[in-house]
Amino acid sequence: MIAEKMKPYVKNNSAIRMMFEEGNRLRAIYGADKVYDFSLGNPSVPAPECVKEAIIDLVNEVEPTVLHGYMSNAGFEDVRQTIAESLNRRFGTKFAAKNLIMTVGAASGLNVIFKTILNPEEEVIVFAPYFLEYGAYVRNFDGKLVEISPDTTTFQPNLEEFEQKITAKTRAVIVNTPHNPTGVVYSEETIKKLAVILEKKQQEFGSVIYLISDEPYRELAYDGVEVPYLTKYYDNTIVGYSYSKSLSLPGERIGYLVIPDEADGSEELITAAAIANRTIGCVNAPSLMQKVIAKCVDAEVDVAAYDKNRLALYNGLKECGFECIKPQGAFYLFVKSPVADEKAFCEAGKKYNILMVPGSSFACPGYVRLAYCVSYDTIINSLPEFKKLAEEFGL
Amino acid sequence: MIAEKMKPYVKNNSAIRMMFEEGNRLRAIYGADKVYDFSLGNPSVPAPECVKEAIIDLVNEVEPTVLHGYMSNAGFEDVRQTIAESLNRRFGTKFAAKNLIMTVGAASGLNVIFKTILNPEEEVIVFAPYFLEYGAYVRNFDGKLVEISPDTTTFQPNLEEFEQKITAKTRAVIVNTPHNPTGVVYSEETIKKLAVILEKKQQEFGSVIYLISDEPYRELAYDGVEVPYLTKYYDNTIVGYSYSKSLSLPGERIGYLVIPDEADGSEELITAAAIANRTIGCVNAPSLMQKVIAKCVDAEVDVAAYDKNRLALYNGLKECGFECIKPQGAFYLFVKSPVADEKAFCEAGKKYNILMVPGSSFACPGYVRLAYCVSYDTIINSLPEFKKLAEEFGL
Repeated sequence: MIAEKMKPYVKNNSAIRMMFEEGNRLRAIYGADKVYDFSLGNPSVPAPECVKEAIIDLVNEVEPTVLHGYMSNAGFEDVRQTIAESLNRRFGTKFAAKNLIMTVGAASGLNVIFKTILNPEEEVIVFAPYFLEYGAYVRNFDGKLVEISPDTTTFQPNLEEFEQKITAKTRAVIVNTPHNPTGVVYSEETIKKLAVILEKKQQEFGSVIYLISDEPYRELAYDGVEVPYLTKYYDNTIVGYSYSKSLSLPGERIGYLVIPDEADGSEELITAAAIANRTIGCVNAPSLMQKVIAKCVDAEVDVAAYDKNRLALYNGLKECGFECIKPQGAFYLFVKSPVADEKAFCEAGKKYNILMVPGSSFACPGYVRLAYCVSYDTIINSLPEFKKLAEEFGL
Repeated sequence: MIAEKMKPYVKNNSAIRMMFEEGNRLRAIYGADKVYDFSLGNPSVPAPECVKEAIIDLVNEVEPTVLHGYMSNAGFEDVRQTIAESLNRRFGTKFAAKNLIMTVGAASGLNVIFKTILNPEEEVIVFAPYFLEYGAYVRNFDGKLVEISPDTTTFQPNLEEFEQKITAKTRAVIVNTPHNPTGVVYSEETIKKLAVILEKKQQEFGSVIYLISDEPYRELAYDGVEVPYLTKYYDNTIVGYSYSKSLSLPGERIGYLVIPDEADGSEELITAAAIANRTIGCVNAPSLMQKVIAKCVDAEVDVAAYDKNRLALYNGLKECGFECIKPQGAFYLFVKSPVADEKAFCEAGKKYNILMVPGSSFACPGYVRLAYCVSYDTIINSLPEFKKLAEEFGL
């Protein structure tokens, strides 16, 4: 009864559901505090207090037909201007309201931009490991996903292979920094090299290649690391942002796209993206949450709580003998599986009530992802279990 | 720079923008209270007080990581169960939480269901006049929109032509009752005849044809008219609902799909629709608003205010000599243009600061749509201007 294109998703979904049900099954048997579920990227740090205050102020002060009403498909102009000014203050950019389109989270922002630019058979490059849902978004518009294999030493993008795989059909490149699933932040050096390659290839093919920066983890960065703002390095950059992690509002579906004036065809892109927002069915980003963002534009969640988790889990796993690149952002560790078949390693983890996601779910087998957006206690209590797991694998 | 598929939308968009700018231009010259803008379907009646109360209670009582957190892609189970029970009480249906999928408004709900069921080249039937955006949603999945010409006497669907145009490729039929742009409510007799035709054609072609009931205006019904609940007449009915009008929350993007157990392949459809919600980029309906709905499930806006507008405008226009079917629902009047070229009539209206939408924007030229979701004063003050307009056209 369902569309042909949906069938692989439904088939694959049962695996995801089985993992979710496994968690519930273990919690029912052993109690929630005895299950170490590192499988979900659902923020554990609550939204900052200003979100609550903003909501209460808004419902008390703003006329409901405005607060909950339609606005331009791009979003409230005052909200977009406030965000633009905040970005300009922080990154020295020169955005105005018109460069921003409020979206139903980053996932929707990516769909809006692909709807806007992508013709069937055009190619979108991603760097493994990557969030597999990118493939679904690209296929929504009959585009072709082109994978670059991982550099498992640094987890910076493999730029040699990248340069080789750019073709006349390359329409866009997705980067995600701070990175899911590795927690790596792409260095300024990486970004500069990437920009040089893109400029060269644009010239070679006489094409326009958009660099799409998917950055829901921008604010989650540690050790004082700088997360370069990509529009400053390459003109044809489009930013997709979300407040899911920076303000812990993943369920509210609120984010934005930035289409800078410098991007080729900027004006046409901006017009088309606002229309795409409507035609893909979102119409506009949720109105109350748009206004909340304007009131909390420079707020962020307690990043120190994630940092504490990061260090506890990273150091704990290293002591057990596991290999892992030290993450500088997001809330994930990407741990090398002690055996090539990381799914077997994940299975073994379940005996110790440890739930992990196989790297093959990110096009990078041989590794597992641990989401440390859990309570600190979960991390501390999991470490003796990780020790046993390590011993089972002879570490 | 934009995708080929987007080009017609961008071209068409400038017409919409021009109308919007015309309104702003007139308001700047004459003052907002001297411009009679009937062009927008943006609710003028505020959300009921319980929405504000629910929001404040929720932010005070619910843990933020839950209130603003991810949930199942189908939505919070308790919210879906509450809505299912409300529908069962009101319509004698037998839905459970699993039959509902919370969506980012009805527009997104329609995209979710088309993503779920529609293969390229399959046909979706609509009855003119209709909301042109349906065409965009169907084209998103490379489906083919098939129009049934209007019955301009009753504005009930033209069932003879309908029966002829169903083919082996017909995958779905959209109905919208109460109806935009006519305000007509499809009678139980119409629905029963429609169901008989669909059953017969399913048998003839050995196919499954889904009846998609797009019903954002369900609660806006007048004169005690009954709005039949379509799942009771035809098993393969899927309902798309929105709280945009019933609770005046259009900017919040909150609605749901109902996929009843009786629908062919129900279980598979439900699974696939929840996945489609994620892959089209919505992920889930906004979380706070889902919880608000559960708390306001039997609330509605002050429908009497719309009714008062309806009668004032309908009677006023009739007195001017205009022809119009008396609407029993929604907040639109569909007025016969006194000249065949209704765009010329709309242009003439602007001289009197009256803004109307041409019927050709709903695939029904020769008519104009007036949205009476405006202030009562706007209606009363517009009537002398309509009188002049009528006289100009010799009525």
